[in-house]
Order: sequence, then structure tokens, then C-alpha cells
Amino acid sequence: MKIIVDAFGGDHAPLAVIEGCRQAVDELGAEILLTGDEEKIRQAAAEAKISLDGMEIVHAPSVIPVEEDPTTLLKKYADSSMAVGLRLLSEGKGEAFVSAGSTGALVVGSTLIVKRVKGVRRIAIGTLVPNAGAGYLLVDAGANHDCRPEMLLQFALMGSAYMEKVQGIPKPRVGLVNIGTEENKGTQLQLDVLPLLKEAPIHFTGNVEARGLPLGEVDVAVTDGFTGNIILKTTEGMGKFFSNELKSMVKSFPGVLGGLLLAGKFGALKKKSDSNEAGGAPLLGLRKPVIKAHGSSNAKAFKNAIRQAMTCHQNNMVGLIEEYMESYRAAEAAAKAEAAAGEEEAQ
Amino acid sequence: MKIIVDAFGGDHAPLAVIEGCRQAVDELGAEILLTGDEEKIRQAAAEAKISLDGMEIVHAPSVIPVEEDPTTLLKKYADSSMAVGLRLLSEGKGEAFVSAGSTGALVVGSTLIVKRVKGVRRIAIGTLVPNAGAGYLLVDAGANHDCRPEMLLQFALMGSAYMEKVQGIPKPRVGLVNIGTEENKGTQLQLDVLPLLKEAPIHFTGNVEARGLPLGEVDVAVTDGFTGNIILKTTEGMGKFFSNELKSMVKSFPGVLGGLLLAGKFGALKKKSDSNEAGGAPLLGLRKPVIKAHGSSNAKAFKNAIRQAMTCHQNNMVGLIEEYMESYRAAEAAAKAEAAAGEEEAQ
Repeated sequence: MKIIVDAFGGDHAPLAVIEGCRQAVDELGAEILLTGDEEKIRQAAAEAKISLDGMEIVHAPSVIPVEEDPTTLLKKYADSSMAVGLRLLSEGKGEAFVSAGSTGALVVGSTLIVKRVKGVRRIAIGTLVPNAGAGYLLVDAGANHDCRPEMLLQFALMGSAYMEKVQGIPKPRVGLVNIGTEENKGTQLQLDVLPLLKEAPIHFTGNVEARGLPLGEVDVAVTDGFTGNIILKTTEGMGKFFSNELKSMVKSFPGVLGGLLLAGKFGALKKKSDSNEAGGAPLLGLRKPVIKAHGSSNAKAFKNAIRQAMTCHQNNMVGLIEEYMESYRAAEAAAKAEAAAGEEEAQ
Repeated sequence: MKIIVDAFGGDHAPLAVIEGCRQAVDELGAEILLTGDEEKIRQAAAEAKISLDGMEIVHAPSVIPVEEDPTTLLKKYADSSMAVGLRLLSEGKGEAFVSAGSTGALVVGSTLIVKRVKGVRRIAIGTLVPNAGAGYLLVDAGANHDCRPEMLLQFALMGSAYMEKVQGIPKPRVGLVNIGTEENKGTQLQLDVLPLLKEAPIHFTGNVEARGLPLGEVDVAVTDGFTGNIILKTTEGMGKFFSNELKSMVKSFPGVLGGLLLAGKFGALKKKSDSNEAGGAPLLGLRKPVIKAHGSSNAKAFKNAIRQAMTCHQNNMVGLIEEYMESYRAAEAAAKAEAAAGEEEAQ
């Protein structure tokens, strides 16, 4: 299985990317298609004495800067490592694409180049957030700030498909993030989407308060991208806050004790909250899997993002999203026909 | 100084309320006016052997249920402990009011009975959230889900007044909660309120990401009530998650060690995140201070909420809000006059 990887995305590119790809080839049996400046890739690999066996390189001389308008990916930066990778994916030269480059460019570029599954209004970013359980998928985690109800419904369908196919949860519990569990809570958006979610062919468990997310009450948390960003960043900030407090706590104990603490449960907790363990964030709603790796990804994070991309393909996540969209379009058509019939009758 | 206290608000009423009032009289020199069923209050005090010295009781036979329509406070529940307390406050029978009853009823009731400072569009709930620093005030923490830009501007002014006068921070850093620090980030609400906040007579530090809140980047975090609830509940959930993890970590060490951990830094962390230490949430924008104590408040929490109410009055927090509103109204009038003059000139 061939995974296309953007060699020039992220803070530690290209070295961390190359190292991660090396691990993915050796440990996961992946075939890798690296995009980026070929000379720089070969030089970085040679300097770090990393073999490029099992990896091909497709030369792409430029890199799209984070601050650039994402649409420049089509023309001005058409020869960038990200644009070239997305084109190779859409042409079927690989099964999935991994990049730690600009989120905005990746969202816009993959929508325009890889294209959406038929019926999908807007693609969404899913982020697996660590919690008391096995983590929950927050969707949308930041791609769409202003959302209509049918977009949230689609986020729910796509998020459920990801958790079932990639995380292996048979009947993912899907919750609508809200300010209370009662059905009359929320803004117009939550009130409007609730009846749609109840009818959806997924395991919808109702409104979920933000308090329940870290405690493991749902597997998929559905929300607009503004609120999703707020949840994600509050969670990150709290994680950092507690990790700082724990460190000062450990320091206050004599050497051996501090070491015990670090080696013991603290290590397990740290591992649980370590974003490098989780891999990247899937872009949901595309015709092929695209994984956004974190900008600060190290080699292990890239390896895990590649593993995730492989699982998306192996378990045909996109296929389940296509099925959901077909039944969604059928239901929509039926509702329209019914409404039309009702109008005729009324006349 | 006389503080009016709702004896029948909260999960542990009336006993925890009476105990908290006892501590406030003894330790803080407060005078207390308790509202509620007089016989039940005297009976609970007698059974627990708590002296009611320094406390008066104003009989109020009913209690408004949490699930009731808040507006019933005016007629059907006009004789409730909360409604009676609010009326006593508006009549000047006490300097501030503390209640752990229904938040919705307290927001609506205090708006209608105690009334707003001239110029205040909507009152807001401020919640002091523990963080790496001395805590930050989240405003609005849940009273107003749909907000206009001028409401958020007023939340900023009122929140700054509270942190300066009650928490004793000379120039509170006020931040607008957003999905990035850049000025072009956010929904239309954030884009519209940013220029207003820049002109406001407070120490506005710009957009703040939710990640910066637990890390202590601002003293006042301004947002709409929907987002405020999401931040507050995510923070609570993360606190609970980490506290559970810490407990299991402590358990994994032999007895004495576990005890050391509990008594040491873990205790300090616990104290920092303990809502009973913080007192209650101020309702901002009213003509007199009203403090919403948490439903699960114990005696210490009530004492701290009473202390907070006393500080609001002593330091004339409402006076500063009145000043801000006067300058706000003057600026608004000047802007209108300018616009009118501009129109005349254009003709």
C-alpha cells in the first residue's frame, strides 16, 4: 500500500518526516511516495544516515507558506510539496496523503484537488482528543466556523464512520455538544440539528455537555468549527497546566521518588495525552483519505499518521461515508417529494 | 454590613447555608439577613446546634424549583426565598444578595427586581476559573447565548471592573476569546467587537486563544454565553479527569507515600481547583451585587460567597460599572452625533 507524504510540512521537516517514513516502511510495511525538493530530501537523509529504501521521491521544488492564501495552491504554489502530493493522490498514485503543512491550504487544496464525496457539503477536520477512555473524535475541530444544521448532521455521519472503521469501535456513541442535555437547550443551530441527528443511521446519544467529553461520555462529539477549536484549545491548555503542576509536584520529592513517579503512572498519563501517539487529524468527506499531521510532529507522530492513513484505506472508511451520503441524499429526496406531494394535496 | 442570603438555595440547604452564615458572622463580621421558611431554618439550626446570633430571618415560605419558568418568580413564586431576598435587596434592606438557587431564575429575577445599571443591555454571569495564575474571570459564563457586539463590549467593561475592585488586580488584562490571536480570526461577532474593545477604557490585550486561559494569559476572558459554557464545562471535565488520574496514581504508591503526596503539592493543586474556595459567580450589570453560589456549595463555599459579596460592596464595584456605562453612553452619543453631522455635510 502506497502512502503519499509531504516531506516539507511541519516544524521539523524534512528530517522528522523522513525518519517517520523510515519507521513506517520498516515497522508497518508501508510504501512511501515523498513529495518535496528531491536534492534537499536526499541530502537530509544522507546527513542523518537514513536509508531511503522503500521510498520514492516526486520532486516538488516549493513549499506553501502558512500565511499564504490557501487558494494559491492551485497556481502560484502548484509545484509545492503539498499540491503535488494532492494531485498524485487524486490521480491514484497512492492510497492516502499525509501532510503537516498549513491546515487552511490542506483543507482548501484537498477540497479542490482530491474532491468531496458526492453529497458532502463541506469537509471537516476530525481530531482524536485523549480522555478517560480511548479518546473521542471532535468534529469539526476547526475547518468551518459558521455551520448550517445539515453540515453538522454530515459531520456526525463522517465522524461515526471514522471511529467505526479506523478506531474499530463497533457502534460509536455520537453526541451533539451543547450547554445542557435537555432537548430545549442551545442556540438555533443545536435546536435545528437535533431532530436530524435522531433520524440519522448512527448511534446518536443526544446532547452532551462539554464536561462529559474528557470523562468519556461519547466517541464522537459533533459541533461547529468555532466551538470545536475552543474545546480543543481549552483541553490543550488544561493539559499543559496540569502537566506543569505535576512536574513541580514531582520536583518537590527527593530524587528516587521523583523518578518513580515519572516512571509510573505519570508516564502513563503523559502517554495518554501525548499528541505524537495519536497520529494526525483526518480530513473527513474527501474521496481519498487525507491526514493532517500536527505542525510539531516528530518522527513517531509521522509514523503514527501514516499508520492511520493505512487503516483508513484498509478498512475503506471512505466507502462507509459514501454509503451514508447515498442514504442521506435518498432521505433528502424523499423528504422533498413528500413536501411537494403535501403541497399538491393542500391545493 | 448586611448581606441577604437565600437559605433555601443549593443541594445542601438550609444546613450548609446556615453553617456558612455562622462562619461569616464569626470570621468576617458580617450581618446576615436569611430568607426562607423561618420554622425550618430554626429547626435545622437547633438540630445542628448552630447559634443564629447575628442573623435575622425574613420568612419566605416557598422555594422556586430549578425546572420552573424563571418569570414565575414575580407572581407564582413571589413568596419564595429567592424573590423575597431580591426584593429586600432592591429596597435597601441589605447591601448584597447571595443565592445558590436556580441560575435562570436568579438572572431573570435580579434583572426584573434589582434592575440593571443604566445603559447595561444584558446582565452577565462572571465565573472565576482557577488556572496557573490567580484565576481568570470568564464572562459571560452562560446567561446570554446569542450576543451582539455591544453586549460583549459591556461584558468586558463589567468583567474588568469586577477583577479590579473585587480581586484587587490594578489593570486587569482583558482578552477576547477567539480561534487565533490574529485580528482577522473568528466569526462576525469577534470581528465586529474587536475595534470596540480596542477603544474601550480598559486594558484590552487583544484576541486570546482558549489554550491561553488555563495558562494565565488574561485576567478577564470575554465571550458569548454559549462559548462561555463550553469553556467552563470543558475546564471542569478536564479537572475531574486529571483528579481521577491523580487519585489512581496516588493509590499505586504504598500508604505513607500516598499520604505524603496527598498532603503535599497534590493538596495545593486540589485547593487551587476547588470551587468551594472561590465563592460564587457574580451577576454583573445589576444596581446591587448579586452572587450566584454553586448548587453544590458547602458551608465554606457559602462563607466565601458572602465574603465576595462584602468585597463587592466595600470596594464599590457597581460604582465603577456605572462610571464605565456613563462613558460608554457618552461615546455612543458622540458617535451618533458625528454620524448625523456627517450625513448633514454629505447632503
